[in-house]
Order: sequence, then structure tokens, then C-alpha cells
Amino acid sequence: MPDSPKLSHVGIAVKNLEQVLKIYSDLGFKSTPTEIVQEHNLKVVQLSDGTVSLELMEPLDAVGPLAKYINSKGEGIHHLAFEVDDLNFMINKLKLLGYILVDCNKTGFKGTKIAFLHPKSTGGTLIELLEHCD
Amino acid sequence: MPDSPKLSHVGIAVKNLEQVLKIYSDLGFKSTPTEIVQEHNLKVVQLSDGTVSLELMEPLDAVGPLAKYINSKGEGIHHLAFEVDDLNFMINKLKLLGYILVDCNKTGFKGTKIAFLHPKSTGGTLIELLEHCD
Repeated sequence: MPDSPKLSHVGIAVKNLEQVLKIYSDLGFKSTPTEIVQEHNLKVVQLSDGTVSLELMEPLDAVGPLAKYINSKGEGIHHLAFEVDDLNFMINKLKLLGYILVDCNKTGFKGTKIAFLHPKSTGGTLIELLEHCD
Repeated sequence: MPDSPKLSHVGIAVKNLEQVLKIYSDLGFKSTPTEIVQEHNLKVVQLSDGTVSLELMEPLDAVGPLAKYINSKGEGIHHLAFEVDDLNFMINKLKLLGYILVDCNKTGFKGTKIAFLHPKSTGGTLIELLEHCD
């Protein structure tokens, strides 16, 4: 039986990454250099407190899922990502329990294996499950 | 100079605490017993992964701030709470920098001193700053 999941990062959707980065810098966070994630057409910066990261994401287009999210819901917290030991085990378990899983076993930031639980399944929160691939 | 803040918990607004608790239990989280926070008229459960907590909050009335939030925005992630070493230092620093702070130095869950940064100041995220009082 795998361990309980760990909160890996909180994804935050932003319109202007540099502006929001200044805010978290004022709060005392240090950030990684900005990265372009071509596959998802995003600009991403990670802020860490040593254990958990905040992931600021700015869409680089006006038509992708993140741009659409910002247009309909506004900027702000977008998803919670939990690290699991065995993604396949968790996907199969949750499907059997009736949860709605999307984008199963896609490749995420830095080569992780990821899947998402739809907010309709979780009380309104988009949940990413991720497994690090060593 | 205080250390950088640590993510203490993620506050999640829910309509029915028991239903959402079942979801996080299926994900593998263990929870604290349900507590009633009379001051804020909330039912609260904390789920921990050992370092960071998820705080599920169900309003016990239909007219308080959390009930209004759920009515307008829906269920889901409500705020991020960062633990700081010196809340007064942080409040004064952020006020000088032009941030909008609300409910400064109120008492939070389990006797913490808390203050909030308004989402208008932070790129859409309600941020709680908290200091543990030993």
C-alpha cells in the first residue's frame, strides 16, 4: 500500500508573471528562473519554501485551457498537485471508486507522470496527481 | 530579517464537509476530528501530509463570508496560509509597499495571530499570514 500523498505544489494562474512574481518576492519567496513549457504554451516560475512549491503559470496564448480558465474564473489558485508513489495504482483505484480522471499518464513539468481529477469529482478543486520518474 | 514564509495550509471551501472528506480519504489523507469554530461559524477538518495541511471549511450559516464566497465562486480552493516568524514585521512591511491588508492581528484557528492580504493585492489569491503564539 503506497504512502499517503504529499502536497507537491500549488498551481496559480496569472495574467502577468513578472507582476505576481514581485508580490511573492515581497513576501520573502525565492524563485527559479522563468521557464517556457512549449508543450502547454505556458511561462512558468516555481517559488519554494523548502518543501512545497508555488507554481506561477502565465498562458502564452489566448485560446488554450489556462487562458480560458483565467477568462472565466479570473486569476488565482488553479490546482493542487499531490505526489504519489505509484500513479497507475492510484488511477486504477480512483477509477474503480467512480472518480473522473482526465489526461491520465501525460508528461508534466520536468518529466513527471501526471493525471488530473476533475473538479466535479472533488468538491470543486482541480487535483493533479504526479509521480516522479527517476 | 525573518525567514521566508512557509506554506502552512491550503483552505478549501466546501458545501458538505463529510462528502469532501470522503474524497480526500480515498486519496489517502488522514483527518483530524471535525471542529466547530464558533467565532467564524464554520465546521473545520484538517488533513495533513506531515508538513502541510489542507483545511476543509463548511459554513454553518447562509450569510457569512464563506457562504457568500461559495455562492458566488463555487466550492474549491479558498486561500493559501503562510506561516511567518513575525506577523507585525510583515504587516508593516507590506503596508509600506502598498498592499491591502485586512483583518490584521485577528485570532485564527488554534490561537494563531492572523492577517489577510486581499486578492486584489496578490494577483487573485487570498493570502493568510499567520504567526504561531507559543
